[in-house]
Amino acid sequence: MRNVYVAGVGSTTFGKHIATPIESLAVEAAARAIVESGIERLNIGALYLGNFISGPLNGKEVLAGIVGERLGLGNIPCTKVEGACASGGIAFRHAWIAIASGMCDAVIVVGVEKMTHASTTEVTSALNCAMDNENDGPSGLTFPGLFGLAWRVHAQQYGTTREDVAAVVIKNKAYGLLNPLAQMGATLSLEKIRESAMIADPLQMFDCCPASDGGAAIVLCAEHLLPANGQPRIKVLASAQTSGSPRIANHPHLCSFEATVTAARQAYAQSGLQPQDIDLVELHDCFSIAEIIDSEDLGLVPRGLGGKWAAEGRTGMDGDIVINPSGGLLAKGHPVGATGIGQIYEVVQQLRGQHPNQVANARIAMTHNLGGTGVACTVNILGRE
Amino acid sequence: MRNVYVAGVGSTTFGKHIATPIESLAVEAAARAIVESGIERLNIGALYLGNFISGPLNGKEVLAGIVGERLGLGNIPCTKVEGACASGGIAFRHAWIAIASGMCDAVIVVGVEKMTHASTTEVTSALNCAMDNENDGPSGLTFPGLFGLAWRVHAQQYGTTREDVAAVVIKNKAYGLLNPLAQMGATLSLEKIRESAMIADPLQMFDCCPASDGGAAIVLCAEHLLPANGQPRIKVLASAQTSGSPRIANHPHLCSFEATVTAARQAYAQSGLQPQDIDLVELHDCFSIAEIIDSEDLGLVPRGLGGKWAAEGRTGMDGDIVINPSGGLLAKGHPVGATGIGQIYEVVQQLRGQHPNQVANARIAMTHNLGGTGVACTVNILGRE
Repeated sequence: MRNVYVAGVGSTTFGKHIATPIESLAVEAAARAIVESGIERLNIGALYLGNFISGPLNGKEVLAGIVGERLGLGNIPCTKVEGACASGGIAFRHAWIAIASGMCDAVIVVGVEKMTHASTTEVTSALNCAMDNENDGPSGLTFPGLFGLAWRVHAQQYGTTREDVAAVVIKNKAYGLLNPLAQMGATLSLEKIRESAMIADPLQMFDCCPASDGGAAIVLCAEHLLPANGQPRIKVLASAQTSGSPRIANHPHLCSFEATVTAARQAYAQSGLQPQDIDLVELHDCFSIAEIIDSEDLGLVPRGLGGKWAAEGRTGMDGDIVINPSGGLLAKGHPVGATGIGQIYEVVQQLRGQHPNQVANARIAMTHNLGGTGVACTVNILGRE
Repeated sequence: MRNVYVAGVGSTTFGKHIATPIESLAVEAAARAIVESGIERLNIGALYLGNFISGPLNGKEVLAGIVGERLGLGNIPCTKVEGACASGGIAFRHAWIAIASGMCDAVIVVGVEKMTHASTTEVTSALNCAMDNENDGPSGLTFPGLFGLAWRVHAQQYGTTREDVAAVVIKNKAYGLLNPLAQMGATLSLEKIRESAMIADPLQMFDCCPASDGGAAIVLCAEHLLPANGQPRIKVLASAQTSGSPRIANHPHLCSFEATVTAARQAYAQSGLQPQDIDLVELHDCFSIAEIIDSEDLGLVPRGLGGKWAAEGRTGMDGDIVINPSGGLLAKGHPVGATGIGQIYEVVQQLRGQHPNQVANARIAMTHNLGGTGVACTVNILGRE
């Protein structure tokens, strides 16, 4: 397999883009990435697009082909991939495969979602397409319900408290204020969080990421096409994709996702790296408790201590492992299909030393994108050469 | 790139499966393919699933992960791909890439759709997700309207008549009667076709494929895993994927699809074969006129003569090129995401010499799967060694 490099990145802001067609969000991000890369469009051999629920929410499919045409990419293969909230990460991995295998020399991958024009009922119903509705539908669970249950298990098993979980929210919302792409940064306190609306006990409003619109894109290339533009060389050190049970009753523990554990193990093996080598991670904090679970599943924090480490500041800017310096899904937002690509965008800026919330001396970064009830997962590791 | 072989195939009948969940249709087809292949599930390294509109019509996404779990495939990457009516073909190509590149030794690809439970309005609205609705939506065109226009252009440019087009319908419906998987075989006459309801002038009811439910699956493998079970060895000689404009006004001719022309050219180049080497083709006859256009775009029939050749029987069982001996989409049915995989299923049976409507001495076969307004296309060539 050949080495794969990041040639350029682009993104819209994450937030409300009610008057913008979904394909335009993708095109804006992709055009920025292509321009930044300096790679000729004729050299781009394939397009991958990650999207989850444009069909139900926008009445639009074949977005890969539509976006490819808008970009003037010619008759190249344009493929949409879907894996719930991990759609973006899966798209990225396929772009990586296309170059690593030698099939293409440059590939563009774009993730996009448009949700904020729809009603809460429509969005909730569309998001529930990521459940195993045949088996779990009758339970009436939605995703806040599932992660509320996970929190209860984590609290019972490891003693995680409201204060611990609030530390994640306060950190990510504060980081979001520093990120010009973020939808919902805020200065919060434990009291404000406690006062916020109860969503699915014990999850409160500030524990939940918002619905978002947005697009993000990356141009990947083989080494010989990497532009000599003075930017640091960012290499993909590992790209892993796994699946896990969509059925809640099949998870041995509600506060661990086998898909994450497996993908992390594969990514460490591919890269020859260990958890302590990772300088920062953008991980899938769709809910505050998810950051705690994910940090443990990725091996970055000892099992059961995700909440305590957050409360002690060990996952913040000067901590043992910096988690979600972008603000994460909680503050940056969660335009579902774009999220996994947006994470790569963020860590590339970190590895270049150009992030508005820069982690000092960042050389190796991880991204983690999780779909549904842990049914799909991708873990990537990128490094500055 | 490594050689890729067909290890096993499976399919449900195409038709009405109203009481069967969509994932069960996929699992039935996939389980049959795995059993037929004799390959251990532990050796299957990835799953690809082609589906178009399960989100809008069934409220279910992440079908790749759901089906992978039902099949007991473990934590392997399970990826849904979407490219409108070419979703199945695109999924097949990604399974081929995974093996050809050396990433996996065996991969299962499954296509599925479930449509007949929905109302005509719901199905029409869902199918229109394959249009470039931002540009072409205001025209009010649906797919029958588009292909009705294409017929008018073909008639004006090449003198194609109602009789010519009816010959396609009569042939495919008759072949459908011989295919136990087919939804709507029939013995038709020009008179019966002329008497059928007008759908989008000049397209009448029998010119249009039905809405269908169904699943189809293929297990692909590298040569060392090919079972020694006495079956003929079926090799993938070419697998091409292209895109074309989703916008109707951008098509230089309404009766030719650039995506098909390009994919065919690539498939011939990959395989070193020429049109006259192809013994039979399963092509994308979503409408009768589409078979005529596709046969010309694929280079199998001279430009403009698709209708005449059909009327003269040159595309039938003893003709110059046998087109759609399965009955095609017109008679076998069109469960959208399954169609491209179902075509492979059919040609594998032909190349094994086991098809209920067997083409004599079939050694090389082509499949052609077209999405939307020609926005996505795949062309495959398979051969018996």
